[in-house]
Amino acid sequence: MDRKSSAGRLLLVAAVLVVTTVGAGGLALAGKAGERSAEKPDGCAQPDRRIQLYAVELPRDPVTGQIRLGYGSTPDTASYPGPTMEMIEGECLAITLHNQVPEATLAQLRVAPEHPLGVSLHVHGVKYTQLSDGTVHSGSYVPPGQSRTYTWYAKPRSAATGSQGTAGYWWYHDHVVGGPHGTQGLGAGLFGGLVVRRQGDTRPDRTYVTAFGDRQTINLRRSPEADTCDHMNPQPGPTCLMAKVGERIEFIVIGLGNELHTFHIHGHSWADTRTGMVEGNSKPLVDSIPVIDNKSLGPGDSFGVQIIAGDSVGPGHWMLHCHMQFHSDAGMYTTLHVIEG
Amino acid sequence: MDRKSSAGRLLLVAAVLVVTTVGAGGLALAGKAGERSAEKPDGCAQPDRRIQLYAVELPRDPVTGQIRLGYGSTPDTASYPGPTMEMIEGECLAITLHNQVPEATLAQLRVAPEHPLGVSLHVHGVKYTQLSDGTVHSGSYVPPGQSRTYTWYAKPRSAATGSQGTAGYWWYHDHVVGGPHGTQGLGAGLFGGLVVRRQGDTRPDRTYVTAFGDRQTINLRRSPEADTCDHMNPQPGPTCLMAKVGERIEFIVIGLGNELHTFHIHGHSWADTRTGMVEGNSKPLVDSIPVIDNKSLGPGDSFGVQIIAGDSVGPGHWMLHCHMQFHSDAGMYTTLHVIEG
Amino acid sequence: MDRKSSAGRLLLVAAVLVVTTVGAGGLALAGKAGERSAEKPDGCAQPDRRIQLYAVELPRDPVTGQIRLGYGSTPDTASYPGPTMEMIEGECLAITLHNQVPEATLAQLRVAPEHPLGVSLHVHGVKYTQLSDGTVHSGSYVPPGQSRTYTWYAKPRSAATGSQGTAGYWWYHDHVVGGPHGTQGLGAGLFGGLVVRRQGDTRPDRTYVTAFGDRQTINLRRSPEADTCDHMNPQPGPTCLMAKVGERIEFIVIGLGNELHTFHIHGHSWADTRTGMVEGNSKPLVDSIPVIDNKSLGPGDSFGVQIIAGDSVGPGHWMLHCHMQFHSDAGMYTTLHVIEG
Repeated sequence: MDRKSSAGRLLLVAAVLVVTTVGAGGLALAGKAGERSAEKPDGCAQPDRRIQLYAVELPRDPVTGQIRLGYGSTPDTASYPGPTMEMIEGECLAITLHNQVPEATLAQLRVAPEHPLGVSLHVHGVKYTQLSDGTVHSGSYVPPGQSRTYTWYAKPRSAATGSQGTAGYWWYHDHVVGGPHGTQGLGAGLFGGLVVRRQGDTRPDRTYVTAFGDRQTINLRRSPEADTCDHMNPQPGPTCLMAKVGERIEFIVIGLGNELHTFHIHGHSWADTRTGMVEGNSKPLVDSIPVIDNKSLGPGDSFGVQIIAGDSVGPGHWMLHCHMQFHSDAGMYTTLHVIEG
Repeated sequence: MDRKSSAGRLLLVAAVLVVTTVGAGGLALAGKAGERSAEKPDGCAQPDRRIQLYAVELPRDPVTGQIRLGYGSTPDTASYPGPTMEMIEGECLAITLHNQVPEATLAQLRVAPEHPLGVSLHVHGVKYTQLSDGTVHSGSYVPPGQSRTYTWYAKPRSAATGSQGTAGYWWYHDHVVGGPHGTQGLGAGLFGGLVVRRQGDTRPDRTYVTAFGDRQTINLRRSPEADTCDHMNPQPGPTCLMAKVGERIEFIVIGLGNELHTFHIHGHSWADTRTGMVEGNSKPLVDSIPVIDNKSLGPGDSFGVQIIAGDSVGPGHWMLHCHMQFHSDAGMYTTLHVIEG
Repeated sequence: MDRKSSAGRLLLVAAVLVVTTVGAGGLALAGKAGERSAEKPDGCAQPDRRIQLYAVELPRDPVTGQIRLGYGSTPDTASYPGPTMEMIEGECLAITLHNQVPEATLAQLRVAPEHPLGVSLHVHGVKYTQLSDGTVHSGSYVPPGQSRTYTWYAKPRSAATGSQGTAGYWWYHDHVVGGPHGTQGLGAGLFGGLVVRRQGDTRPDRTYVTAFGDRQTINLRRSPEADTCDHMNPQPGPTCLMAKVGERIEFIVIGLGNELHTFHIHGHSWADTRTGMVEGNSKPLVDSIPVIDNKSLGPGDSFGVQIIAGDSVGPGHWMLHCHMQFHSDAGMYTTLHVIEG
């Protein structure tokens, strides 16, 4: 209570005219007009784009019977993971989240009776004010049947301001369902990938999200039985990772839940950089960068891996798995199907 | 025994005149005079600075009743974490540790009767000889009521010698209390942060230590109840993380104990570099460096995160937590209070 | 079955003439002749070198009584870890694996009766086709008493093709014994280190493999009792880590099994780069690279650490351990014995 109300007061204070500068970092924190908004992060005068996002209940997990929720651009297309978002540095995005999850379902997921019912949108990496934090203490969540607009700003890198930018491989998720950290919302499926590109970044031919989570799951699914690929004519999707030889594909790799996992692909490797590729041709840089084919991630971590499908190794059913042995033995693996173009 | 005595012999050997050079690395290992000291690492002829450090017993943990120990510049100011140490590359520091922890307390923490009673000072990242290792087998610990001087050398980076320097975010801790790895000393509070800066590094406005440890604790404390901030007029300290909008703050993040944790702050991100900032303006470098807002750390890991408080996002009560869901649900989170300057 | 047969068909398709290019990445995936082979990765027309590798059963673990298997260049020299492989970028290596492990032993390790009996060779980091994948579904394993040749290609970095190369610290291991992920083969000792160097890399004076695995083991051994060093005259080997002051030594650090571990050495640190050293002298690069002395690794991870033994700190018995406290307390530590040259 005290926390929440004082947060309100702080944000009120924040709404007045301020011009702040830091000698040290040489950063100008005020917006162009020197005006700070409680709704929009500095640098985002107006959203460049507006989209709708729906939180809905989906059929229960066919294997475990657990409740499943999903985000979707429309209620009918909601899924877990939710739609993959893409932004470019400099862009400001307004997302209106509509909570269509039945109140009874939210009540069922609640771990404490005093905890409010609602869903939210919390995002990693990009900029947002407290009003877009997607948390209970900031009051930035959506009660059942209601809507709320969240504003994300992909702040660009700028040598002038010292900003290092927001380009990267991120994710968004609920932070409210069940408890103050959204553990039940996350566990039910309210998460998705976000990639922020930098001007000049090479676009991949395909993008896949692989969220490594509890119970030895990838995208909340376990074992190759979850792989829906027709081996003769695979159709790409969250349960069918496929590519043609030579295509540049990227994975948005996300860590969920309570455990350590590792992301490993057979036959392919990547540079441990922002994109998985080595940019430019600076010898000291290139010689310093590790190239890897297995990367550990804890809950909340996310990174991007870009590879050229079948590069030098050709087509095949390449295993993609967690290298924690008991996890892969329990079914925490799928296949990257690389076919001739 | 054999190990310890032979260590003694080795160090005796080490005390004689030697001039060693490595063709490969081009490193000159001998000091200016070509003399190697058993007490002081090569490059540290004389300490540039001498400080006192006291290990004392503190009141038991108010919640768990566990024994608490702390390091302090004076016995009265001992705390957990201990005082944050700061060095600059090239500096040599002599620290005299006074063991004022009651012998009975050390005996209580001891896991094996034959294990010696004492406390020590083991440090990460900087250079020290075996006599400053802070371990049992090297005999470099402090029995109850006694004192011992440890010498740390922040070896500078040098293209000439090939030394990559010691600038970084490190920590120091006991390595003797209870057993040969100091597990009981660490668990009781005998640890602190160390930052070694490089000539030209920008100084932050504030520095905080956040040690992520067992039982879902940050600095051995759990849940927001440990947060002592007055929300209207927060006073900075180990249990009150606050900053004014635009201030450059740094966190020395430390992993303790037995578990994986992740360090996550809402609304803020950093570059995965030595300082958390991107230095210089080399495009290939800048484009290669990942910017992150969540970083996994295992026990013993430490890293630094520099951020500009409220940059673009403004003031607010920004959550700082472990993203392992059951950890945050159990109270492994605190708040970075960002207020208007 | 279906998976395997369709893999077969895919590889058949792969054998025909193809010339594939990617506009995006500017990569030419076809070999010089534009011919893709099912046996050899693009770029490897003919192996530059051919070696033999034997998989054999070794005496059971003296402490736990567990079955032990090893790879060796000859049956008599098999060990765990297996022989450390070294390649240089551009090299193509053909390894003929002879399975001399008794069928009864493999049957004993099998977790499901329908699982085939055999051993295999799966490698990280370098390039290989599905026929050298070392997995069951690709049929690339070796039944008892039989042999099979695996082809590895250390694809070189090339600015022209955009290839980032394969130089790095990798490992190889069985992927078939017991189950489809080789968990029982790995646990029994079928693994080894691989280092791929880049033209111009400085060669170390000594190389050691330290595989951090389950049951608090390093190279499947636990506690200093496993250390066979004569402290007065240490002979280097997998159970005796020693170096002379000033020698450049490297560790190939591997994560095995099911747990998080951290690699920590007393008195020494390294740059978190491909080699552990900072290459070149680019100030922004150098200032960005973290220098560390403790690194977390999950199963499947591998990295290289190059250090100058005793640099500035002199000789001594330097602890090398997992910093997870209960692991080091349980004996997950050894010693790097640094003696005068």
